[in-house]
Amino acid sequence: MFEPSEKSGGIAYAIREVLVPARKLEKNGIKIIKMNIGDPIAYDFDTPHHIKEALYQAALDGYNGYAPSEGYEELREEIVKREKKRNGMGYDIDDICVTTGVTEALQMFLAAVLNAGDELLVPGPTYPPYNLITSFHGAKPVPYATIEEENWQPDVEDIRKKINRRTKAIIIINPNNPTGALYPPKVIKEILDLAAENNIIVVSDEIYDDIVFEGRHYSTASLAKDMPIITFNGFSKVYLVPGWRVGYAIFNNPNGELDKVKDAFFRIARARLCASSVAQRAMIAALRGSQQHIVEMVNKLRKRRDFAYKRINEINGLSTTKPQGAFYIFPKIETNKWKSDKEFVLDVLENAHVLFVHGSGFCPVYGKNHFRAVILPPLEVIEEAFNRVEEFMKRVIE
Amino acid sequence: MFEPSEKSGGIAYAIREVLVPARKLEKNGIKIIKMNIGDPIAYDFDTPHHIKEALYQAALDGYNGYAPSEGYEELREEIVKREKKRNGMGYDIDDICVTTGVTEALQMFLAAVLNAGDELLVPGPTYPPYNLITSFHGAKPVPYATIEEENWQPDVEDIRKKINRRTKAIIIINPNNPTGALYPPKVIKEILDLAAENNIIVVSDEIYDDIVFEGRHYSTASLAKDMPIITFNGFSKVYLVPGWRVGYAIFNNPNGELDKVKDAFFRIARARLCASSVAQRAMIAALRGSQQHIVEMVNKLRKRRDFAYKRINEINGLSTTKPQGAFYIFPKIETNKWKSDKEFVLDVLENAHVLFVHGSGFCPVYGKNHFRAVILPPLEVIEEAFNRVEEFMKRVIE
Repeated sequence: MFEPSEKSGGIAYAIREVLVPARKLEKNGIKIIKMNIGDPIAYDFDTPHHIKEALYQAALDGYNGYAPSEGYEELREEIVKREKKRNGMGYDIDDICVTTGVTEALQMFLAAVLNAGDELLVPGPTYPPYNLITSFHGAKPVPYATIEEENWQPDVEDIRKKINRRTKAIIIINPNNPTGALYPPKVIKEILDLAAENNIIVVSDEIYDDIVFEGRHYSTASLAKDMPIITFNGFSKVYLVPGWRVGYAIFNNPNGELDKVKDAFFRIARARLCASSVAQRAMIAALRGSQQHIVEMVNKLRKRRDFAYKRINEINGLSTTKPQGAFYIFPKIETNKWKSDKEFVLDVLENAHVLFVHGSGFCPVYGKNHFRAVILPPLEVIEEAFNRVEEFMKRVIE
Repeated sequence: MFEPSEKSGGIAYAIREVLVPARKLEKNGIKIIKMNIGDPIAYDFDTPHHIKEALYQAALDGYNGYAPSEGYEELREEIVKREKKRNGMGYDIDDICVTTGVTEALQMFLAAVLNAGDELLVPGPTYPPYNLITSFHGAKPVPYATIEEENWQPDVEDIRKKINRRTKAIIIINPNNPTGALYPPKVIKEILDLAAENNIIVVSDEIYDDIVFEGRHYSTASLAKDMPIITFNGFSKVYLVPGWRVGYAIFNNPNGELDKVKDAFFRIARARLCASSVAQRAMIAALRGSQQHIVEMVNKLRKRRDFAYKRINEINGLSTTKPQGAFYIFPKIETNKWKSDKEFVLDVLENAHVLFVHGSGFCPVYGKNHFRAVILPPLEVIEEAFNRVEEFMKRVIE
């Protein structure tokens, strides 16, 4: 038997791993309500038609060969314009690298900066690949607390305590996956101050930036234009093309402090060919065309958020805060009838046929006793899902 | 200034790095004949129309969300059928994982198996990412000799000498990039015997398998169905969609010896979402539809190969073997007028305005004093390119 690498031992991605038992049930003819995956297309959202047309046109126009490793210039220009208009940023196209989704951006960034023994501050809970890939490099993901009672805002004091000489970078995810938190500028500024004092790279993952239900999303870089900040963003969520795999990284590097890291990032980019050529061309059209679908999507999601929030809080044994952005809700399991949140999720799957993701998959410390549900399905599906959960919990608890 | 990771220091990808000086010349209005990049679409080849239609249809049919991490079942079924028909293999869909090009397949494989200190036997010369990513993991790429005088066949005796306790896997690239070599079954079998004796994983990169000018391509796994062999393949070259980024890995695992490695590979796959959904759907159509474009492409390339072979051997100071597959030619620089093959390539770029890739970018040992040219351009472009090279060399040498 051949042995795999040691570092591969730790790789297990909660969001996708729970699919394995779900598929088994489905093979036995059982219908599962899937509340687990952050893919609007799996529910009643659809890619705007002009974006599909642009994909086809790109193929007809011959954009089927390799794209530049950094991405097509026209796409990077449109991203520069969006950043100017939305966030008042004055980027150059050379500050932008187009990637195969945000996942590839974070893979490339972590490969570009992490040495074994380094620490990466990640929100607790966080999008799991930040933990997985950090461990993969022999570095340590250190979760900082976020405060459920304050709508999952980062606990700045906890961040301060966890910074040490090994801390290489801090990740901000805003709006947050899995909690749906939207961070106020004051909190972001406090984190930025800590980063500046301690010489830590700030990475801001803003893939849900236009999916906000009340208030306004402040881009991290817009709050400190003179600071080295790397922003991750992508088209999967806001432009409804998760399967097309297009994201990007933006380097805000006013004083050249990121020169070497940026150089490493772009060298890694050149070692892996390119993001999808046709999908990149379609994203040029996505940024140039109508943005009306975003308004409609957010209005639809707000209603679903309101309903899910109300319904979950009616269930004995569950409670939840109200998400302000993204398309997730992160309820708390208020009972100790289950050994762990994973047991809860598997039990709900097996007996109520509803699939969630266990909170500890997002953070063993600050995610435990929680689960993540999407607020993407139509109201009647959300209703049916939580009716089933309620009935199931009644049976178990009473 | 923030420091990048130590391992990122070694990342430099010859094929894409030579583009930087070429772009500079182009910015000054100089027209470069590009003989450097393995992208048929950049010349007079085009994606078959029914494949473009299938991409569009996939978007219209709603395949815009995440695909399964392992790839759509229908695509994996078509790959199973192709392997049955072409190579007599009896794979199951669970043996196949669809990836974002072969590049991602090799990234995932090397991440799944390499520990620091391990050695990977790679052909000398090789496709550069095998070297880059191996070094990135703190492991060592060890090039084995291939014999130019014997049309770049692997030197089995050299492989034998280089196997030791640290050798984890051996890479076969057949047809070969950059040499265009096609390996006879006898040589492949000898390598397989060595691997079996020494408990080494065999990886066979066969992305150019249907681009063969004479003779026949033997899939490595088909020559030893009872052995653990991992095959990489993809659609970029044979189906003329390099920019769409779809490849795959196949695990031939008759005795379960690859169980743990396969498990690690698939866990890594699940940690990174998926390959492009719409492109995957289009590849189902590519495998089901007409294969006539392959015949036409190979006939066109054979003429260009014949011409390039003849023309290069007419030039004083250059010589070349005759490629039997893929779409590259790997001539030797017979003079020592240049300090290195990289100097030669940069000098040709600067003065003759033709862009090649230096041989040492593919292997510092067995690639030096060579350069790689594609045989993809129309005859008149190949002619003009080598006319320029000939004139330039006359000026320098005489």
